[in-house]
Amino acid sequence: MFKLPIQSDFSIHNLPFGIFSTVGSPKRIGVALGDRVIDLYALGKLGVWDFDIDVLKQDSLNSFIALGKSKTNGVRKSIREWFLDLKNAPFEDFNNISVSLAEVDLHLPVQVGDYTDFYSSLEHATNVGKMFRDPEQPLLPNWKHLPVGYHGRASTIIPSGQPIRRPKGQILAVSEDLPRFGPTQRLDFELEMGFIVGKENRLGESISTAEAEEYIFGLVLCNDWSARDIQKWEYVPLGPFLGKSFATSISPWVIPLEALDPFRVDGPIQDPTPLPYLQYSGLKNYDIHLEVHLEPQGHPPSLICQSNFKYMYWNMAQQLTHHTSNGCQIRVGDLMASGTLSGKTPDSYGSLLELSWGGKNPLPLNGGASRTFLEDGDSLHLSAYAENKEIRVGFGSLSNTILPSL
Amino acid sequence: MFKLPIQSDFSIHNLPFGIFSTVGSPKRIGVALGDRVIDLYALGKLGVWDFDIDVLKQDSLNSFIALGKSKTNGVRKSIREWFLDLKNAPFEDFNNISVSLAEVDLHLPVQVGDYTDFYSSLEHATNVGKMFRDPEQPLLPNWKHLPVGYHGRASTIIPSGQPIRRPKGQILAVSEDLPRFGPTQRLDFELEMGFIVGKENRLGESISTAEAEEYIFGLVLCNDWSARDIQKWEYVPLGPFLGKSFATSISPWVIPLEALDPFRVDGPIQDPTPLPYLQYSGLKNYDIHLEVHLEPQGHPPSLICQSNFKYMYWNMAQQLTHHTSNGCQIRVGDLMASGTLSGKTPDSYGSLLELSWGGKNPLPLNGGASRTFLEDGDSLHLSAYAENKEIRVGFGSLSNTILPSL
Repeated sequence: MFKLPIQSDFSIHNLPFGIFSTVGSPKRIGVALGDRVIDLYALGKLGVWDFDIDVLKQDSLNSFIALGKSKTNGVRKSIREWFLDLKNAPFEDFNNISVSLAEVDLHLPVQVGDYTDFYSSLEHATNVGKMFRDPEQPLLPNWKHLPVGYHGRASTIIPSGQPIRRPKGQILAVSEDLPRFGPTQRLDFELEMGFIVGKENRLGESISTAEAEEYIFGLVLCNDWSARDIQKWEYVPLGPFLGKSFATSISPWVIPLEALDPFRVDGPIQDPTPLPYLQYSGLKNYDIHLEVHLEPQGHPPSLICQSNFKYMYWNMAQQLTHHTSNGCQIRVGDLMASGTLSGKTPDSYGSLLELSWGGKNPLPLNGGASRTFLEDGDSLHLSAYAENKEIRVGFGSLSNTILPSL
Repeated sequence: MFKLPIQSDFSIHNLPFGIFSTVGSPKRIGVALGDRVIDLYALGKLGVWDFDIDVLKQDSLNSFIALGKSKTNGVRKSIREWFLDLKNAPFEDFNNISVSLAEVDLHLPVQVGDYTDFYSSLEHATNVGKMFRDPEQPLLPNWKHLPVGYHGRASTIIPSGQPIRRPKGQILAVSEDLPRFGPTQRLDFELEMGFIVGKENRLGESISTAEAEEYIFGLVLCNDWSARDIQKWEYVPLGPFLGKSFATSISPWVIPLEALDPFRVDGPIQDPTPLPYLQYSGLKNYDIHLEVHLEPQGHPPSLICQSNFKYMYWNMAQQLTHHTSNGCQIRVGDLMASGTLSGKTPDSYGSLLELSWGGKNPLPLNGGASRTFLEDGDSLHLSAYAENKEIRVGFGSLSNTILPSL
């Protein structure tokens, strides 16, 4: 008899979507529930849904997401009802339509057409501005007027579990006049959340903040790996490029926006008041607890950061509205990440750049090690969950390990 | 009897690939020859090639390009031989395997996974630096050490013929303290060439300058539409975003790199000598004449710019090598554009920003009009060709018209 998981990230209130495979079987869509993965195609073959179930045996969620929220949330609603009252379930044995999470391979959940990275944490932008520009005026004049963002590289978005090859690049050492070429010495992570676009607009048409959430399918954890020394030399005047484009990793389960409804909270006060097109009503931030563990090879993991998605200054609706304010087309599967999610206190900083304050203050770790930036063999684990007295909705883990340069 | 076109952009020495459709028939691959489009699928059905001809009836060139240069240049070689000696052609009547260029719709030739825009014209970077930063030190310190570039938006790459909707955005007027939101007042074009990636590398692996041309399938004309006022306010510190992401247009015919072999020339002397990974041997620049015509609604077109692709400081091999130097994966169909291709003289500047020197010097046009930036109803025509005493290889035209803001 199946017992509903209570403490799990993947409670009956979550029901996130992902792409899994088992030995000898192709990739297909699954829903995580406790320590099991529900095989949606196996369930769909029982004739329970009114759409073409071929979308359930594809190697990305894109076609399924494109069915629209009424269908995708309909799937979650029916699963929820069957499990809350197993008598009405269309399956006799849960094992026939599910596999153990421990036995599956998890893959990139979506095919990302375009990847945008915002810069929406006030604390992160302030910390970076203090280190690299002016401690007295760390924010640039535009920061509080618009959600600053840039285009990232879609081809190098990778899943949890895939190792990160330490990138090489041009670096100008502080004491030198000319750049050299070699492996980055300042490899860093960035703790971010990302949302997956669920609906396309037409080129030339904008999306208001009131409409924006219709276009947001769900959320993933995101690590925007960064080589700080490569980035520092290359980034003027056109922004980050090779210092970022070697890898961005995302977590395997896409948490539908609706699963996070119980955790809506007010965002930070925005002063000055944004221009009318960026104003919004309602609760558009989400109280989601974030953690980062750093695990050097042969050492125990250390908790190095605890932050929260609710700190984000510009919310997702504002980001999406700003992104389409020029008529830019967004497509199903696009990834829009938050930027590094730092809080106010030093133990909530979402990157080693901030945690070690530009490499000046090595971070002590469990087992006697310490770090300014990442070393070969280090593993990084991001995790996130929302929780109240009754329910828990989690993201699972996003883990990647550093390999030495080729 | 078919006579080989001599003066045409689409001579027997060119044979570029594109995607076309005719009334009532789906998109498929064509080769331009004079004023005709060869229907490759119709030709393939005659059993002349040793690959699965299903790739010839797709709506993008990607799968065809992925066959590799031996196949794609094999197609061009066989067509060339049949037309130079019609006795050996597998078709009896050229009209059976071709249609008039005047009767077809031309479409986006490739599905672009990632779009990168470089900034590789010394003259353009110098002009922009003089206007926006320091007339005495217009180039930033990194510019002569690496090909500066940034990630662009792939979803808004559009074909020739599709109108451009004037974008809206946040703009900080010179005389004001706070930004406002509205239609751009400084809509501009950028004259660029772009290359289409023809071969994929593995994530984590780099491509040398000696190997780079194996990865370049062919070239297109590219117009990286820009809203200068939106760009100016938003672009610090992460680079261009909404000032560019409303549209990038490319020409319909992809000119295979091999068709441009007769036009290889030396590039500018690079001083300082680049780091070893960016050094190269052989002729890697191309002598391709470039023109821009501006045609206000109801007025005759005016030639406003004549430039050349050979002025590019960082060549395509260097761009591609730099792009993958951090292990970044490139994929078939990726677009890498040159950046604005300005020459030394004011009549060779590749943008209105430079031609009107930041709006200070209105550009007189035929018929009595003048322009600082683009107005609604204006059409912009980019064209390009390479020519010597014997042969001509051209790009045709890239044309788009400005529509008013919604």
